[in-house]
Amino acid sequence: MTDRLAELTRLFPDLKLSTDPGDMEHHGRDWTRRWPPSPLAIAWPASIDEVQGIVRWANQQGVAVVPSGGRTGLSGGAVAANGELVLSLDRMNRVLDFDPIDRTLTVQAGMALEAVQNAAREHGLIYPVDFAARGSCQIGGNVATNAGGIRVIRYGNTRQWIAGLKVVTGTGELLDLNRGLIKNASGYDLRHLVIGSEGTLGIVVEATLALTAPPPPSQVMLLAIPAMDALMKVFAEARHRLRLEAFEFFTDRALHHVLAHGAQRPFDDAYPFYVVSEFDAADAEAEAAGLAFFEFCLAEGWVVDGAIASSDAQAAALWRLREGITESLAPHKPYKNDVSVRISAVPAFMAEMQALLTREYPDFDVVWFGHIGDGNLHINVLKPTDIDNASFVEQCEHVTSMLVDTLARHGGSISAEHGIGLVKKPWLGSVRSEAEIALMRGIKAVWDPNGIMNPGKLL
Amino acid sequence: MTDRLAELTRLFPDLKLSTDPGDMEHHGRDWTRRWPPSPLAIAWPASIDEVQGIVRWANQQGVAVVPSGGRTGLSGGAVAANGELVLSLDRMNRVLDFDPIDRTLTVQAGMALEAVQNAAREHGLIYPVDFAARGSCQIGGNVATNAGGIRVIRYGNTRQWIAGLKVVTGTGELLDLNRGLIKNASGYDLRHLVIGSEGTLGIVVEATLALTAPPPPSQVMLLAIPAMDALMKVFAEARHRLRLEAFEFFTDRALHHVLAHGAQRPFDDAYPFYVVSEFDAADAEAEAAGLAFFEFCLAEGWVVDGAIASSDAQAAALWRLREGITESLAPHKPYKNDVSVRISAVPAFMAEMQALLTREYPDFDVVWFGHIGDGNLHINVLKPTDIDNASFVEQCEHVTSMLVDTLARHGGSISAEHGIGLVKKPWLGSVRSEAEIALMRGIKAVWDPNGIMNPGKLL
Repeated sequence: MTDRLAELTRLFPDLKLSTDPGDMEHHGRDWTRRWPPSPLAIAWPASIDEVQGIVRWANQQGVAVVPSGGRTGLSGGAVAANGELVLSLDRMNRVLDFDPIDRTLTVQAGMALEAVQNAAREHGLIYPVDFAARGSCQIGGNVATNAGGIRVIRYGNTRQWIAGLKVVTGTGELLDLNRGLIKNASGYDLRHLVIGSEGTLGIVVEATLALTAPPPPSQVMLLAIPAMDALMKVFAEARHRLRLEAFEFFTDRALHHVLAHGAQRPFDDAYPFYVVSEFDAADAEAEAAGLAFFEFCLAEGWVVDGAIASSDAQAAALWRLREGITESLAPHKPYKNDVSVRISAVPAFMAEMQALLTREYPDFDVVWFGHIGDGNLHINVLKPTDIDNASFVEQCEHVTSMLVDTLARHGGSISAEHGIGLVKKPWLGSVRSEAEIALMRGIKAVWDPNGIMNPGKLL
Repeated sequence: MTDRLAELTRLFPDLKLSTDPGDMEHHGRDWTRRWPPSPLAIAWPASIDEVQGIVRWANQQGVAVVPSGGRTGLSGGAVAANGELVLSLDRMNRVLDFDPIDRTLTVQAGMALEAVQNAAREHGLIYPVDFAARGSCQIGGNVATNAGGIRVIRYGNTRQWIAGLKVVTGTGELLDLNRGLIKNASGYDLRHLVIGSEGTLGIVVEATLALTAPPPPSQVMLLAIPAMDALMKVFAEARHRLRLEAFEFFTDRALHHVLAHGAQRPFDDAYPFYVVSEFDAADAEAEAAGLAFFEFCLAEGWVVDGAIASSDAQAAALWRLREGITESLAPHKPYKNDVSVRISAVPAFMAEMQALLTREYPDFDVVWFGHIGDGNLHINVLKPTDIDNASFVEQCEHVTSMLVDTLARHGGSISAEHGIGLVKKPWLGSVRSEAEIALMRGIKAVWDPNGIMNPGKLL
């Protein structure tokens, strides 16, 4: 133990702390695997007091702090590769309060998203943010990245569901932001500044989450789409005729990997594109609207095959085709692009990007999928086994620099929902102006004057 | 003309500028009438270039700038009483773009809310933020105050509908924030920092507004409520059974003034409290639910009389009872409280506040109304004719100081939707902690280092 850690132990004798190599390895990285973990130590505070104490100690000792949730991030935002103290929220994972009139659930930041969803359901309500990492990711990390996922089209991002937030700033001050009020016009809404700040301003320690009534029964439909330019026509039609819960797309290459990973083949034939859509189907009329939508798209030639789930098990099987993609790609160490444009720009952007990627990645397996109803595409480039990691990333980043130009022409963003972290930092300037970045740096200096909060990430 | 204004004219020969006493009087104040207007001049820029130029000139000359929209604000946020240049957005009032796929409307900041609503309707969509000042207030001011109103219960505040924002900072930099993207995880969301900042960080010059599909046909119902403690029971029942568009309450004193101002009496008898509610009634089933809700509340004794509008004209007449209140009170120079608590805290808070106001204002006419489904109450104290303005305000502020303690005990806010401006500034510390205020000041210094943007307001 270093002197600095000894001092921390002296100040907080009950604080759980580890320098065990296994812990350091495990908690020093996120789902990116690019940076070898090298933290100073891992701390598991059990209270807000301990979090504040750690931050004050870190300021005195000049130790950088990496706030650490489920570490399911894909941008390196939770990596500790430079002697940082990892501050894990794992032990702060309880429900603190439920209010049936306000319809709010107050939880500690270390609670897993799925546990939050379950707690809401126990009260007959839902917390509607949802995505595949639900079992591991934590609500504090969801806030720090403004997590999106598969229901954004209906419910928006995490931002929309945060009624209150307790945050420990970079100087160790505890802020109790908005306190669950629906209306509160009392100056800058610092809550919204913290949401999406990737742990660079402070540490989220508690959140008061707005819940809502469950949606009506829904139907899940899988569509086979013959050509890229039909995708957004199908989407426009679906949005016009149905009340959408989700509208997700993936390519034949994505289906290939998810089938190889154990999912069930949905159609006898193969098609270039697929859509999984879920929509309200409370009554016979709404169900008929779903069928009419399908038949219209079929007649137009925008859809060439389809399946409607007639049981929960079938719905789950159809969803698995989309939700299993990320896991099925993981063994191939994918280089991940997570881009967005306005939905009106999707067709032109996709065409241009496909031309670019076909030209630049002639030999790589490129897998497309994503939340196309939000203008958000995930483009995963799989690492061929005969190329080493470093040169693979180098080649991919070369293409990313070209992709960034395409994005800029279409008014898009290099990070739709993964955040900037370490991975996208070289391209922050492609989506935010110099003036914006200068303001961000200035704001960070106000919140974290000694620069100890997740340094090197984002900015 | 001073030398400073001569310099401005030299730099921008085409800039519309006035020091006419009538203009100064008219544009130097908002709907508060407490501060005698005393601006340096009024400027009406016609372009973003001119706005940037004015701000750069103001920095060089050390002139304070008050951004000015429809000046319908109730907190003094747009008052120019100290030789400021009033920067009016009146001439920047055009629609710039509509995108049917993105469902966004891009407008200049000086466009009136009602004009925005009409432009959306022309495209078969709605911009759902709405309140009585719709004809005069401007979208830039709506953003600067995060305007709320009568549909928040269904659609949220202005914040929820801002997909992109162009802002000129206190140094004259133009920011193009978020550019209409649905998903964009690329650092601090400065858009949300500007929303609600009351012109203290910069000037909103353009907004890209998200639109949505119109709601189904609705019904408007007026309910007579015999006792305060029944109000929130009726609300809970309505929220449970109906899909609410609005749930507004007012007292017999409010009805008295709105009737005196020309509205039509709804019931033969008088009752202590009233609720106007609007809810979806797309089909016979939904209409029946409305009736069942009413009959249930009647049977419980929570409601003692009611009326359902059977035509648009009747609906408008019922709404006028609520929407006409502010105008009917204006001749009485009301001292306005605009407070909020979590809705679970409303009953206890209201009881305590009523006791306080009855004790402290035995001789004043106190009028309650507001968005009770959002936990937001407007309490207007009317000025007796035999008291002068200054001592009336002084007496009211004395009571506000006590009200603030009550609010604090119930976790509430001294400003629900009017903002802090000049009027609520003495009590900012009751709702925001010292640490929060210090962060706000630090952020303001980053955006506006010379302190020229609406100085003295909010902070």
